[in-house]
Amino acid sequence: MKSALIVAGGKGLRMGTELPKQFLPVGGKPVLMRTLEAFYTYDPEMRIILVLPRSQQEYWKRLCREYRFSVCHTIADGGDTRFHSVKNGLALVEAPGLVGVHDGVRPFVSQEVISRCYALAVEKRAVIPVVDVVETVRHLEGERSTTVNRDNYKLVQTPQVFDAALLKEAYEQPYTSHFTDDASVVEALGIPVFLTAGNRENIKITTPFDLRIATALIDSCSI
Amino acid sequence: MKSALIVAGGKGLRMGTELPKQFLPVGGKPVLMRTLEAFYTYDPEMRIILVLPRSQQEYWKRLCREYRFSVCHTIADGGDTRFHSVKNGLALVEAPGLVGVHDGVRPFVSQEVISRCYALAVEKRAVIPVVDVVETVRHLEGERSTTVNRDNYKLVQTPQVFDAALLKEAYEQPYTSHFTDDASVVEALGIPVFLTAGNRENIKITTPFDLRIATALIDSCSI
Repeated sequence: MKSALIVAGGKGLRMGTELPKQFLPVGGKPVLMRTLEAFYTYDPEMRIILVLPRSQQEYWKRLCREYRFSVCHTIADGGDTRFHSVKNGLALVEAPGLVGVHDGVRPFVSQEVISRCYALAVEKRAVIPVVDVVETVRHLEGERSTTVNRDNYKLVQTPQVFDAALLKEAYEQPYTSHFTDDASVVEALGIPVFLTAGNRENIKITTPFDLRIATALIDSCSI
Repeated sequence: MKSALIVAGGKGLRMGTELPKQFLPVGGKPVLMRTLEAFYTYDPEMRIILVLPRSQQEYWKRLCREYRFSVCHTIADGGDTRFHSVKNGLALVEAPGLVGVHDGVRPFVSQEVISRCYALAVEKRAVIPVVDVVETVRHLEGERSTTVNRDNYKLVQTPQVFDAALLKEAYEQPYTSHFTDDASVVEALGIPVFLTAGNRENIKITTPFDLRIATALIDSCSI
């Protein structure tokens, strides 16, 4: 059994708009619908669970009717933090199986990356997509900062795909602010995480600048 | 005396095209012309030195005639590495004064960032623009990798602006592969570098994906 947990907790404050960013249209369709479609395209049989703050659920349902959005999904309540949102969603996930956790505002994940992450997770149990850092990186140390070797760093994307039983167990741990993504929660159990290549276009849409990039990606018709 | 050293050493191999990336048109005009214009707009009186591989100089001059490109600049020969290119360009820079070193493939640096970097360099002597890391960051350690606190890391942009005499002195040091940007060369003298905010749009155009973003930035008419 394969599941995808799409986490859309964002309040949209950084966008300078009232509308949470996952609902903003890109190329005529809300970001979140594009994200769900990516997983549906990968496997129409998989279970898709959308984690959304309670206050946004009515709006989302209205949007689905308006756009005649047909991708079947279950809605779970968002929590106070991303950790609590994922935990709520996981309650609906069945084990044994695989579960991928994906940011609702990453509509441009490629089919290749989704399928590779799920395929690798069968054996590796914990798989995350990463991309190279293309800029020079500096590490801040108090008042000082130094250049570090960027080859030793990777930027992490989603979907992060796990053995479902393992991820459920990981999320039984008490919350700490060190848990910035699902990989860090699983690692707190002492389980190593396997890295695989993500795709550059798989950006997280969190600022007006990102939204302009997103529009460009749609316009260029290659996605 | 203010100078800008625009470094355009790229061979363009990563673009999947024969034409070095700095010559590719974005919004109907080659990237490199947009970059030079940004500095001319900031200060029409400043000295602009373009460092370009010898093999590309004739092509560039032809391009300038074709586009009736009127921004006055001097051409210096590119070297085998970025370090040697900058060193060649620095031979034409006058001290005392300020010199900013900027990537030829970063046409979207904002006027605000250019002027802030030069203004701060008067007192700080070494100033670089940086932006936050928005993704989760992992640090690779052999076979393992761990999540690090991204608040402690910054991504470095250009222009990196220096006291001209200081930068000339720094480039007298023997070359090592640790010199990934101008800041690292100056720091090897024991001189601290001051960080200031860059602008998100100030991307380095190195891949076809970047070129699509660049086109979007031009199309959205805000630059």
